[in-house]
Amino acid sequence: MIKHNFSAGPSILPKEVMKTASDAILEINNSGLSLIEISHRSKDFVDIMDNATSTALELLDLQNKGYKALFLQGGASLQFLMTAYNLLESKSGYLDTGSWSTKAIKEAKLFGDVIEVASSKEKNFNYVPKNFNIDPDLDYLHITTNNTIFGTQVKNIPETKVPLVADMSSDIFSKNIDFSKFSLIYAGAQKNMGPAGTTLVIIKEDVLGKVTRKIPSMLNYQIHIDKKSMFNTPPVFAVYTSMLTLEWLKKNGGISAIEKKNSLKANLIYNEIDSNELFEGFAEIEDRSYMNATFNLKNQEHKDIFNQMCLEANISGVNGHRSVGGYRASIYNAMEISSVNILVEVMKELKNKV
Amino acid sequence: MIKHNFSAGPSILPKEVMKTASDAILEINNSGLSLIEISHRSKDFVDIMDNATSTALELLDLQNKGYKALFLQGGASLQFLMTAYNLLESKSGYLDTGSWSTKAIKEAKLFGDVIEVASSKEKNFNYVPKNFNIDPDLDYLHITTNNTIFGTQVKNIPETKVPLVADMSSDIFSKNIDFSKFSLIYAGAQKNMGPAGTTLVIIKEDVLGKVTRKIPSMLNYQIHIDKKSMFNTPPVFAVYTSMLTLEWLKKNGGISAIEKKNSLKANLIYNEIDSNELFEGFAEIEDRSYMNATFNLKNQEHKDIFNQMCLEANISGVNGHRSVGGYRASIYNAMEISSVNILVEVMKELKNKV
Repeated sequence: MIKHNFSAGPSILPKEVMKTASDAILEINNSGLSLIEISHRSKDFVDIMDNATSTALELLDLQNKGYKALFLQGGASLQFLMTAYNLLESKSGYLDTGSWSTKAIKEAKLFGDVIEVASSKEKNFNYVPKNFNIDPDLDYLHITTNNTIFGTQVKNIPETKVPLVADMSSDIFSKNIDFSKFSLIYAGAQKNMGPAGTTLVIIKEDVLGKVTRKIPSMLNYQIHIDKKSMFNTPPVFAVYTSMLTLEWLKKNGGISAIEKKNSLKANLIYNEIDSNELFEGFAEIEDRSYMNATFNLKNQEHKDIFNQMCLEANISGVNGHRSVGGYRASIYNAMEISSVNILVEVMKELKNKV
Repeated sequence: MIKHNFSAGPSILPKEVMKTASDAILEINNSGLSLIEISHRSKDFVDIMDNATSTALELLDLQNKGYKALFLQGGASLQFLMTAYNLLESKSGYLDTGSWSTKAIKEAKLFGDVIEVASSKEKNFNYVPKNFNIDPDLDYLHITTNNTIFGTQVKNIPETKVPLVADMSSDIFSKNIDFSKFSLIYAGAQKNMGPAGTTLVIIKEDVLGKVTRKIPSMLNYQIHIDKKSMFNTPPVFAVYTSMLTLEWLKKNGGISAIEKKNSLKANLIYNEIDSNELFEGFAEIEDRSYMNATFNLKNQEHKDIFNQMCLEANISGVNGHRSVGGYRASIYNAMEISSVNILVEVMKELKNKV
């Protein structure tokens, strides 16, 4: 049975990654040992960590530009407070584009002033605010590049001289942007990069060392940089599987190649949403996410039959988040065009059933 | 090839756990989906989390006694600061028995006064201090029950009325003690419980809510309790594999049964250390760990031949930690008696080779 998994995260990963990860649980590198029973100080695992961090920087075109890549634990949620703990001395700016940025703002307020440069809350975050002012004295400006729940995506990175911090949990490695515009990027692995349990953090080192507070070791980026993500035992399986996914992406042409495929997938589904009279999109057209398409039935009486048709077509994970309702098709890097076609066919077919 | 893996952590897990975990990466519960691509809000995963937490409490005999079990991220290292963040209002007590307690003390000092009730540092932590005074006004007393690096173990829990906090990373589920003496227990999974990437935290709820500082959400035990370890995306694979290991332990007679096996294994190796004139133990006899046996060759010229014999016998992971040197045989729950016998045979055989 082939399932078409549109889950928002944890989410689909390449089949070959699943197979290799499964094999590694039984034995890694012909060692007679499982990946998960070897020391994280062993050459086998140190090589994995080195490969994962260098491949991440290479894919983002950030090698030899003063950046370090870390694989940490705690998800984006721990980064909400770590960014503020490490960077917020007096005041920070946050662009409020949905639940995740709202949570980031809440944690940052424990450490200093937070200026919300703009918010789309009044329209339930169905668009991305633009043309807002950015105080040049901010310690940093924080944005969430893709808003999983609402299906919006920041298409133009704000122009500013203050350090840019971005939560890219749900669109990192999906399209080419100039990543060197950012001082700090973080991303929970469980969308485009790997299983839940690790977080990629990309830091330009010159942004650190500017706050006066004492930072606990586990929350201190500089310590994790100095220890090459090995200050404590890393989440071995999640790092290994992320490495496999990054290698898969590199082998398949990197971000440029996947961006074309992602555009094709997004166009397929948005074209259907716009041309099918039974459906309507949630997000403003110009701000639509190429990772998470949010939409709804115009007539809720068609819900049971559409859900049943999805079930019969082996489509899973398309229920919308409770704060938006309706449907959400997450079409991350590993999603095949053929799976998107099947969803589109079911949407078309609904016209013949109602 | 059967390897005899004496690694200190990440470390050996039951073979049947490895097999089931490997299969789950390909498909979980006949769903057509991998364990690592399903939503953590799905019934499949919610059941896994519920089962893992309830089995942990059951094995520790802490059900219906006011305790909650959490599966968090960040290892014991994050707990060093979380315990202090949540519990330390004015002053805390720490028993200093090695590297891990020293690190815990360092983090706690950021949040309040720390009284070292006793330390074995002057003898490179080769024993566990006893008969120390405990200030009855401490917010809590923190101990590390087993000291992986030095091979010592606390055999008698200190008698005190102040809340007891314990780092049990390397001996939880290995022997029966009265766990209800503790207000908070934490343990990184990667010794007796599962792969690296999750930390079990057992909390008696009445110890919380007594500090005045504001606690960031991800560091706040009460929030993780309220959200049943699902405040953010949990480390799915590590929780699942920990659940499998806890179920394996329960099926095999629980802690009482494994304690007998662990005693047998420890006695086998310590008897050899004491009776073999080529070896000497590191830790004081009365404080010896039943999880990590530390020992050395009396004559370092025998090192190369002993290492070669271990290699030929498929023994791995017996190198001592750099701060102690020599050898360390970690004999966690999943280690078979047959593997310990092989190590003991090699130690015996060395007499014929030198």
